[in-house]
Amino acid sequence: MLLRGRPRALGAGALLLLLIGFFLFGGYPEYGLRRATVLDGGPPAGLNHSACAPQPPLPPKCELLHVAIVCAGHNSSREAVTLVKSLLFYRKNPLHLHLVTDAVARNILETLFRTWMVPAVVVSFYDAEKLKPLISWIPNKHYSGLYGLMKLVLPGVLPPSLAQAIILDTDVTFASDIAELWAFFAHFSGVILLRLDRLRQAGWEQMWKRTAKRELLALPATSLADQDIFNAVIKEHPDLVQPLPCVWNVQLSEHTLAERCYLEAADLKVIHWNSPKKLRVKNKHAAFFRNLYLTFLGYDGKLLRRDLIGCPSQLPPGAEQLQQALAQLDEEDPCFEFRRQQLTVHRVHITFLPHQPLPPHPHDVTLVAQLSMDRLQMLEALCRHWPGPMSLALYLTDAEAQQFLRFVEASPVLSARQNVAYHVVYREGAFYPVNQLRNVALAQALTPYVFLSDIDFLPAYSLYDYLRVSIEQLGLGGGRKTALVVPAFETLHYRFSFPSSKAELLALLDAGSLYTFRYHEWPRGHAPTDYARWREAQKPYQVQWAADYEPYVVVARDCPRYDSRFVGFGWNKVAHIVELDAQGYEFLVLPEAFAIHLPHAPSLDISRFRSSFTYRDCLQTLKEEFHQDLSRRYGAAALKYLTALRQPQGPA
Amino acid sequence: MLLRGRPRALGAGALLLLLIGFFLFGGYPEYGLRRATVLDGGPPAGLNHSACAPQPPLPPKCELLHVAIVCAGHNSSREAVTLVKSLLFYRKNPLHLHLVTDAVARNILETLFRTWMVPAVVVSFYDAEKLKPLISWIPNKHYSGLYGLMKLVLPGVLPPSLAQAIILDTDVTFASDIAELWAFFAHFSGVILLRLDRLRQAGWEQMWKRTAKRELLALPATSLADQDIFNAVIKEHPDLVQPLPCVWNVQLSEHTLAERCYLEAADLKVIHWNSPKKLRVKNKHAAFFRNLYLTFLGYDGKLLRRDLIGCPSQLPPGAEQLQQALAQLDEEDPCFEFRRQQLTVHRVHITFLPHQPLPPHPHDVTLVAQLSMDRLQMLEALCRHWPGPMSLALYLTDAEAQQFLRFVEASPVLSARQNVAYHVVYREGAFYPVNQLRNVALAQALTPYVFLSDIDFLPAYSLYDYLRVSIEQLGLGGGRKTALVVPAFETLHYRFSFPSSKAELLALLDAGSLYTFRYHEWPRGHAPTDYARWREAQKPYQVQWAADYEPYVVVARDCPRYDSRFVGFGWNKVAHIVELDAQGYEFLVLPEAFAIHLPHAPSLDISRFRSSFTYRDCLQTLKEEFHQDLSRRYGAAALKYLTALRQPQGPA
Repeated sequence: MLLRGRPRALGAGALLLLLIGFFLFGGYPEYGLRRATVLDGGPPAGLNHSACAPQPPLPPKCELLHVAIVCAGHNSSREAVTLVKSLLFYRKNPLHLHLVTDAVARNILETLFRTWMVPAVVVSFYDAEKLKPLISWIPNKHYSGLYGLMKLVLPGVLPPSLAQAIILDTDVTFASDIAELWAFFAHFSGVILLRLDRLRQAGWEQMWKRTAKRELLALPATSLADQDIFNAVIKEHPDLVQPLPCVWNVQLSEHTLAERCYLEAADLKVIHWNSPKKLRVKNKHAAFFRNLYLTFLGYDGKLLRRDLIGCPSQLPPGAEQLQQALAQLDEEDPCFEFRRQQLTVHRVHITFLPHQPLPPHPHDVTLVAQLSMDRLQMLEALCRHWPGPMSLALYLTDAEAQQFLRFVEASPVLSARQNVAYHVVYREGAFYPVNQLRNVALAQALTPYVFLSDIDFLPAYSLYDYLRVSIEQLGLGGGRKTALVVPAFETLHYRFSFPSSKAELLALLDAGSLYTFRYHEWPRGHAPTDYARWREAQKPYQVQWAADYEPYVVVARDCPRYDSRFVGFGWNKVAHIVELDAQGYEFLVLPEAFAIHLPHAPSLDISRFRSSFTYRDCLQTLKEEFHQDLSRRYGAAALKYLTALRQPQGPA
Repeated sequence: MLLRGRPRALGAGALLLLLIGFFLFGGYPEYGLRRATVLDGGPPAGLNHSACAPQPPLPPKCELLHVAIVCAGHNSSREAVTLVKSLLFYRKNPLHLHLVTDAVARNILETLFRTWMVPAVVVSFYDAEKLKPLISWIPNKHYSGLYGLMKLVLPGVLPPSLAQAIILDTDVTFASDIAELWAFFAHFSGVILLRLDRLRQAGWEQMWKRTAKRELLALPATSLADQDIFNAVIKEHPDLVQPLPCVWNVQLSEHTLAERCYLEAADLKVIHWNSPKKLRVKNKHAAFFRNLYLTFLGYDGKLLRRDLIGCPSQLPPGAEQLQQALAQLDEEDPCFEFRRQQLTVHRVHITFLPHQPLPPHPHDVTLVAQLSMDRLQMLEALCRHWPGPMSLALYLTDAEAQQFLRFVEASPVLSARQNVAYHVVYREGAFYPVNQLRNVALAQALTPYVFLSDIDFLPAYSLYDYLRVSIEQLGLGGGRKTALVVPAFETLHYRFSFPSSKAELLALLDAGSLYTFRYHEWPRGHAPTDYARWREAQKPYQVQWAADYEPYVVVARDCPRYDSRFVGFGWNKVAHIVELDAQGYEFLVLPEAFAIHLPHAPSLDISRFRSSFTYRDCLQTLKEEFHQDLSRRYGAAALKYLTALRQPQGPA
């Protein structure tokens, strides 16, 4: 599969990307490479199932391999993750990923790699914004736009000390160890020196610019994609091209060259075909391509967190402290699983779907909540009730994240919303890390205020507007520590007509169709809100903290984080409210605000809590430890919480 | 890692199993093998990351490789599936699996492979029962008992035409292509002939028996495991052993030999370590072992359904017809996804967990239902309400099946039950294949009668006993076609005290705490049950079919199957009741029977139904096609269903 002379229709953007590594660093005319080593365009002669010959010797097993990827935006970031998973699955060498990203992709991928903590992977970021001026003079209309063209300037962008790198498009999937690809650098090392620096010295930059400008003059085309420019340069400098065996970039196609490759080859090394549309193409070999792609799409990324065997340990930042902390846990401690869950660093993929928040407004409020698959069906109703921004953490497996993606795409209501940010926190461990999830969603809220809610509550239709007006009228901000309480109600009925006003709500309450939240089994949780007073209230009123109070509140975004020691069911919100009180927050109940809890089947975590003595004992232990920490931090002021704790209590 | 002379403590049962292929077929003293080709016990000298030398040439890419596995019981069957998944993931050759199984494993694995439909995999079964007499004279107490010893007699059991086979224990996981292992047969082919038939001719059977008997005489041991016998034979005939490079059977261990292997080797080919207990072992290389195992434990097996590239197509039984049927679907048909779902052959793993049904009783009834993860929390309550046998189909991903396993293990109520059979149907496609699931559960019911229920219904505590008595008293059976109707009720409240008698139920009904099922939104579904008559009824009464009737019924196990064209929400039970009526079943309502539906959040499928016109249009199309089929099968008798269909209707 020669790159040279490939018609444009075949040389689709992505095809080049794997070759580009070899192309850019591939050789000079004076080395006579094409005479010395010509690989056939089809499967190389002599390549059979068992032969070692066509595969050059692999690099030493601990040699660092460099990979560069250009990635911009939310969707491309998701693609890049799947590519990286396939890379990590088969790799045996340390890797250095050079990621050229826009701000969105950088934000996503920095968080992801920080929390992924894969040993023997170094990640460097390069700001794509800075590269734009270098290529923005080229008219282009290719879907990947300027980002595609950035591959042209990579030799000048990657560190001067870097001698060789494999450049990958985000839409390829590996089916083999990238070291086998890297080996092609060394294979020709007796003939030519495959060095980035030489390419730089040879004036690559002048070379492609000259060509591009001439093409622009000569062609009636109004735009040039990177592929067009590469093709033109190659046409002019054919010896730059070092073709690879076709197995290194196989596209599913009815084209005979591609089909000949995958029919005759024993082994496909990299496939290049993963767009959802293409997944439906009817082709007798479609299954291989699709299934390899789907394998890594749904692959549990945490399984890739493993040290290389036989190489010096190369732990990512934070991993060593984490290992030490885990090593200090006592496996015999009955609360071992709780403590381990608390220490778990979950992989986090922030803004998993496209998200375009409005510019910040000084009184704006983001609804913050968390959920897992069993609450997806709440999202549409929530969107109807809350037109404002939302920051939602979703606790999912990698496979569920794909289901979630399809769920949103299938919903006109959800896919129309630009101001809802979905942050995927990948599942790991036995307990639901409710407070870690809340903290992820809270950290990603972009407005000055946040409404700390739960996913099974629907806010009053007017709540978003009302909260913004209240925040403005109450003059919040400026260091005043205030938590606005949104009174909570519940219905035990599935079929339920949501009240459009406080008056309607009160009527339903009187009719017994609604209750104050957890009125039957845990009245302490909301008693301090003082529902009787709320009925009559015309303006906000202050209430005092009391034991086990866990109202839903609106606070400034810089509020205390949730205590991540509370996992699963129980005390996770209570502790947060204690923290607010300890830090001097005043609690103001809003007279027109309300939210209503909809019924749902009990979560598995609640079932476990109800049936397990260990669970309850551990929760007790964790509460005590929480109070010890409070005393340490707040001194005598924290005494009241301990006193309250020792009073007779209900279930949680 | 020499097998010869390995102390027993190290030569744990499973270690041998990979070697056994080579051991059994590995050579004779007269060929001087050990002098000709001696591989070091550690990583072979010269084995480095890039060298091809130690890896013998691979077999031709379409050569059939033979693998034998001994597998007995429910748990071992689950293990075998994970092994097979790892095998299939890396393999590039056609495989013939020779499975030596007991009746339980055969039942499970036959169904699994039939529905898995993996191209280029042939499966043969061998009855382990027949092998027992050959080895039952050997006293043993090894956990795997007689089944472990069966490996001794495999050369006599496998087909005489079979010249070589790799014998695997169920608890190994492949990290590479099994062809690389197979290649070791050929590697030595210039020196020795690795032939099963020769080993047979050489009198293997006499050899091991003689040794075993002598060992029994000489040792104070009261039992012999297969490993003991192999060790003893090897001690006597050291030249039988052909050691493999250590990477082919790596155990996670603090033992220096093993550690030296995985530190120096670049590549582990097979790992041998997957018991849940061992997964918690602290070892710096534990992650590699654990993650490889977990990869295949949760791997979506349907992704392994792909033809080999470049080999003649070898479709499993039924796959060709299926492909033709799929090819005939029109992708532009708005109901394409419905029709594709209907044709989907889901992988089925019957009796996923240990199951010990009581001997059949002539009036016994099995509760039949289906569920997915979001209804797991119903299982405990259901077990409390229904002490009788149950056959439940679970629609799960491979990863969810493991969660389900842990869920049952953590529940004393569930793990105590021996008469509940769980059949995992693996997820595939966009719609919930509700009727396919029901059919799987129905087909696996072992009693003469079945109660066709839904997972969110709790039966009256007395229902199981009452049904058996009623079946006996009514003299069911003997060709009489009767459907006993269990009247259905519902509560809209979460917190709910289940009535212990019909009188209590009626009181709750009068108090408005209970309703007849779907009284508010779909009364036609149960109206023919005639709840008013039921209130007063003292004995069973007959009712007539009417349009949209969908009662919960008890019928003989040989009742009609559910129509699998109905997927997702809507008409799936209605069509079944029509079928019963068309076949002349009488409907008898039982005066003391009842079941109560508990509330739950609407399923995603219902949400989709409610929001999608296409969904409703397709359902209408499917209903019409169903009626055409009815007319074809029942002629004029089916007219009444069509007439009923054309009357004004409600939502479904």
